Order: sequence, then C-alpha cells, then structure tokens
Amino acid sequence: MSTPAFLPHVERMAGYVPGEQPKDAGTIIKLNTNENPYPPSPSVGKAIAQALGDGRLRLYPDPAATNVREAVARRHGQGVTPEMVLVGNGSDDCLTIVTRAFVGPGDVLSYPTPSYILYRTLAEIQGARAVEVPFRADWTIDPAAFAADRPRLALLANPNSPSGTMLPPSAVGEIARRLDCPLVVDEAYADFAGEDCIGLVSELPNVIVTRTLSKGLSLAGLRVGYLIARPEVIAGLNKVKDSYNCDTLSLLGAEAALDDEAYTRSIRDRVIATRSRMIAAVRALGYEVPESRGNFIWCAGGPPAESVYEALKERRILVRLMRYPGRPPGLRITVGTDEQADRLLSALGEIVAGR
Amino acid sequence: MSTPAFLPHVERMAGYVPGEQPKDAGTIIKLNTNENPYPPSPSVGKAIAQALGDGRLRLYPDPAATNVREAVARRHGQGVTPEMVLVGNGSDDCLTIVTRAFVGPGDVLSYPTPSYILYRTLAEIQGARAVEVPFRADWTIDPAAFAADRPRLALLANPNSPSGTMLPPSAVGEIARRLDCPLVVDEAYADFAGEDCIGLVSELPNVIVTRTLSKGLSLAGLRVGYLIARPEVIAGLNKVKDSYNCDTLSLLGAEAALDDEAYTRSIRDRVIATRSRMIAAVRALGYEVPESRGNFIWCAGGPPAESVYEALKERRILVRLMRYPGRPPGLRITVGTDEQADRLLSALGEIVAGR
Repeated sequence: MSTPAFLPHVERMAGYVPGEQPKDAGTIIKLNTNENPYPPSPSVGKAIAQALGDGRLRLYPDPAATNVREAVARRHGQGVTPEMVLVGNGSDDCLTIVTRAFVGPGDVLSYPTPSYILYRTLAEIQGARAVEVPFRADWTIDPAAFAADRPRLALLANPNSPSGTMLPPSAVGEIARRLDCPLVVDEAYADFAGEDCIGLVSELPNVIVTRTLSKGLSLAGLRVGYLIARPEVIAGLNKVKDSYNCDTLSLLGAEAALDDEAYTRSIRDRVIATRSRMIAAVRALGYEVPESRGNFIWCAGGPPAESVYEALKERRILVRLMRYPGRPPGLRITVGTDEQADRLLSALGEIVAGR
Repeated sequence: MSTPAFLPHVERMAGYVPGEQPKDAGTIIKLNTNENPYPPSPSVGKAIAQALGDGRLRLYPDPAATNVREAVARRHGQGVTPEMVLVGNGSDDCLTIVTRAFVGPGDVLSYPTPSYILYRTLAEIQGARAVEVPFRADWTIDPAAFAADRPRLALLANPNSPSGTMLPPSAVGEIARRLDCPLVVDEAYADFAGEDCIGLVSELPNVIVTRTLSKGLSLAGLRVGYLIARPEVIAGLNKVKDSYNCDTLSLLGAEAALDDEAYTRSIRDRVIATRSRMIAAVRALGYEVPESRGNFIWCAGGPPAESVYEALKERRILVRLMRYPGRPPGLRITVGTDEQADRLLSALGEIVAGR
C-alpha cells in the first residue's frame, strides 16, 4: 500500500542515459549519436505511404516479421535463412532479448571496455554481474581474459564504439571458441566496416550476430534491428520476445530498405570518404584517432575533451563526450555530410588554436 | 562451444502464442484478436505522411515520448500529468517493463483466471511463480485470495478478457488496498467500458494502469500503449525500458489519435451498438454470454466450441477458441462491423442448426 518496492538491483541502478536528442535538431549539427547524415532509401517512404491508405493499421502486424526475415536472408547470403533471423525493435531489443534468455541474477555477463555503455545496464536489469574486460592498448582482446570469469553471456561490439576499431572475424572466432556461453557480436556499425562475422554463425553454434538499420540504412527513427543465429537459438529467443515487438510501418520500411542494397552502398561510400578526411584532420589537431570502421571517430589524448565539447556546443555542434573509468574523457564524433565535417573541422581548428 | 544453454526457466517454458494473424486477412472475417473493425482516425495517416518527407527517419526518436505523454495527460485529465506516463511499444511492452522491475526468480506474480494468457508467460520469462486466482462464478474477485500468496506484483485485466466483464473502480481499489505490492490494472479494453481506474492512481500509490491504442483507437498495427502511475514509479520503470522503444512514426500517429477523442467516441459507439446486438443473438443460440464491457464477447456453455470454431473457419470466419484448465473451451468473438456481425450470426445460426 506504500510506494511499491522495485527489485533491489533495479532500485540500485542508475539507468542508461542515451545521447542527447535535442528538439531543435534541425538547427544544430548533430554528431552525437551516430545517425547517418543521409536520408534513408526513397523506397522506405513509398512503402510506408502506400500502407497508410489501406486500413491495415487497425490490424496487428505479423508477429514473426516474415517479410523482413526473408529480406535479411536475401541481403546477407552467407548461408543465412529466414529461420536464422529474429527481428527486433532496434538491435537494443535484440540485446535485451538475448540477455533475458541467457543471464539470471548473479550470473556473469562479460564485455570489453571501453565499449557500448548499454551493456552494463542490460546486466544490471537482470541482476547479473557485469565483468568488463579491458581492451589492450591496440584495441585487441585477450580471449582468455574474456572467458576467465565463466560468463553466461559475452557481448562484443564489432566494430567497437567508441573506438571504431574492429577485430577480424578470425579473432572473433577464437574468442567464441574459448567461451562456454553465447557470444553476441554486436554489428551495429558493420555496414561501414567492409566485413562482418555472419559467416561464423554457421561455423560456431555459440555465435549470435546482431545488426541494426539505424546506422548503415539511416533508419534510427524506425526502430528495426535483427539477430542472426542458429535456428534452435532463434526458437528459444522467440519465447522471450514480445509478440508484436515491431509495428506494421517499421516492418514495411525495413523490408524496402534491406532490399535497396545499391542505395545502402552509395551512402556508405560517402560516409567512408568523409570519415577518412575527418580522421586525418583531427589527427593533425593533436588527437589520437584510431582507424575507424564505423560512422564515427574517437578522439582522445589531445586537447581537453570537456572544454572542446562545450566550445563545440556553444557553436551549435553536438558531439558525444564519453567518460570511462580510468581513462581521460574522449570525444566520439559522428561522421556527417561533407559540409557538416567542414564546419566541425573549422570549429575544432579555431577552438584548439584558442580563438 | 555447444549450442548455448538458455536459462532453465526459459528452456522449460512453451512461449506465448498470439492469435492467428493470417496473411490473407483481407478476404476473411477476422474476429479473433479484438482488433477494431473501423479504421483509425484520419489524422493518424496525415501526421505520419507529413513526417515521411522531412528526413527525420534518419534520426532517433524522442526516447521520452514527450508529445505522446502530454497527449495522454490531455486525454484523461483526472490529475494525470506527463510525469505520470510511460509510453510503451504496445501495452504488452508496459507489462513487460513492470514485470522486469518488480518480479524476480521465485517471486509470486498473481492474476485472475481465466484472463489474458500472456500473464503466465511474463511470469515464466522472469522465472517467477504464477499464482492464478479463479474468478468467482459471477466474475468478481475475492480480494483476500488475490493477496494470499504475498505476490510481488498483481495483474488485473479490467475489463477482463475473455469474459468481457469488469470490476467497478471501488472493487479494484479494495483489491489494491489489500495488496502489499503494485497492482497493474490492464485497461486494454477500457475505451469500450465507459469507466476506468485512472482516478485510483492518485488515491493509491500501488495502482498502475496500462492502456493501449490497439483496441479503442484502432491502431494495433502501430504498437503504442502507455502506463499511468505515480511519478516515482515511472522514474523506476524508465530505468528498465529500452531507451528507444517507440519509433518516430508510431509516436506521431499516437499523438494524433489521442487528440482525436471525437473520432474515438464515434467508433466506440458503433462497436457498443453492434456488441449489444451480437450478445442478444448469440444468447438466443444457447450460449452463456456475460455482459461485455470490451470489444468482444465470450461464448461458453452452449454448442461445442471446437466444432463451431472449425465450422466458422471453413466459412472463412476466424474467431478465437480459448482453453483454460478446468473449464470447457469457449469462443471469444471480436465485435466487428454490422455487416461482419450479420455474416457471423447467420453462419453461427446455420452451424448450430446443423445445416
């Protein structure tokens, strides 16, 4: 009858804080949450507009997301069949489903650090123990360290955020072989990487790959991601997912976007070209920037991140200030359009020069 | 390295099976999952179509669903402020969030039976113990029985499915007062009921109300629901919800629908009129049909449900055959348009007469 008591581990946790989503996004240069600077495939809007008139919104969506799973199989090949695909409300939903299926209170969930800060929250909600395995200085991972605490689940962002670095599939396979639990390879940024670990799913039964349409397909607003795993793994995960986790319009838009690979490649190439230019220019300002395989760059070790972040914000350029324990803060900057990159680089140059 | 092991309680569970969503929904009379027979407010399509052209799908949605929370507060009054609202990907998402926040392994989750079959699945995913409290023959609840097993969370569908019956807010308040845990009043069907328990949220700190846009607002395809509770409860639940659990288009459509109360009332009145007619006609065929406060009717105790279900399906009319332990199966039939109701009643009449 008093205010209800949350589970103790929920009570204790702080909760995940996503990157700022300002309401006046139209008037600022928003390079803080790794959105794609280009619009999604024109086929997305067409597919959705058609459905708006036909009255189908009154009906439940397909709980199995059949058409999207088929489009995922078409897109990737590499032995992926629709039975190996689960569609989620963004890849965050896929990560939530996997965590709920494999990790109970007190269990160990392992992941590298610094990496996607949501992983800790996922562990906390389950009352699990988060074990953070530090990356080596060259952003590689010691497979033995990853397996040391007998995790029930391991998560690996690849390419990694915030570093932008990537382990080759062979190294990921080595990690998976050492683990006696599922390894989720979170490939949110793989569309910008030129390679991926989807082939490992056929090779190793404990490999699960997650993808999102938010970054490479420019559909952060649509909330669609997917997970690729063995059919028997998918069958178990389906018991945990909300039946109608994706809506009718998102499913239609996702299918259209997945089938427009030529468009995806064209915007990817533009992002990659701008990324190279940004890396070179930011390095010239004194930052250490690892080679990035994502649509963002990680700037550490140069002019102080906090004050640069604030000075950029004053100039209406929003980047992500990221703090990880035991490290100086860094700036994670999304790759924008060429014009946005020019304005960012010019502002950064002024700020660093103290003007 | 072998196929990964799910949590034992996940391994054991069967998983929720939603009502059939046939691909050829256009050519059958679909009265099995309580969708609204009328299209959503025309303002929904307009709001979404506008957003398709402005490029915002590349950006993340508002994780706080601010505009929808404000529309919910406008819609309900009764002291509801935006700080008392959490927006979910359907009310199923709200129920999932609440369960994850309050119920751990071995904890008791109580709910009446027969009721929404998802409740058992929600308990099972958490490894919790589902305690089913039988409704009395008149579809009321013994508040003492509901509180007996010291639940950590109690769920009450009101109006209830499959019965369509409803406890008055005073009776719900009495249940809440007896409980030393949150009571979720699942008001998925309250738009057809003429009253609701939202006023109890201000009165009793442990009352949480969930609503959906799927039924009364005819937006099952859009996946939007919401939860109303004290601000301190909302703050805790927000730690558990996926940050971007609702997409941009769904949020825009939801806001438009919530603001078009005149339209909602107009389709509600039509559903209620057809419901009365269906109840009278189905009773005349020998079924016991409780007075329904939802957009469906519950037909039990008459001609055998299984064979009638199959005979209707042969005539391309899909209703829901529902089985609950210790009871003969029954038919839950969604209230359709008048034309759909005529065809259903005529088919039912023929089947019962053995023609």
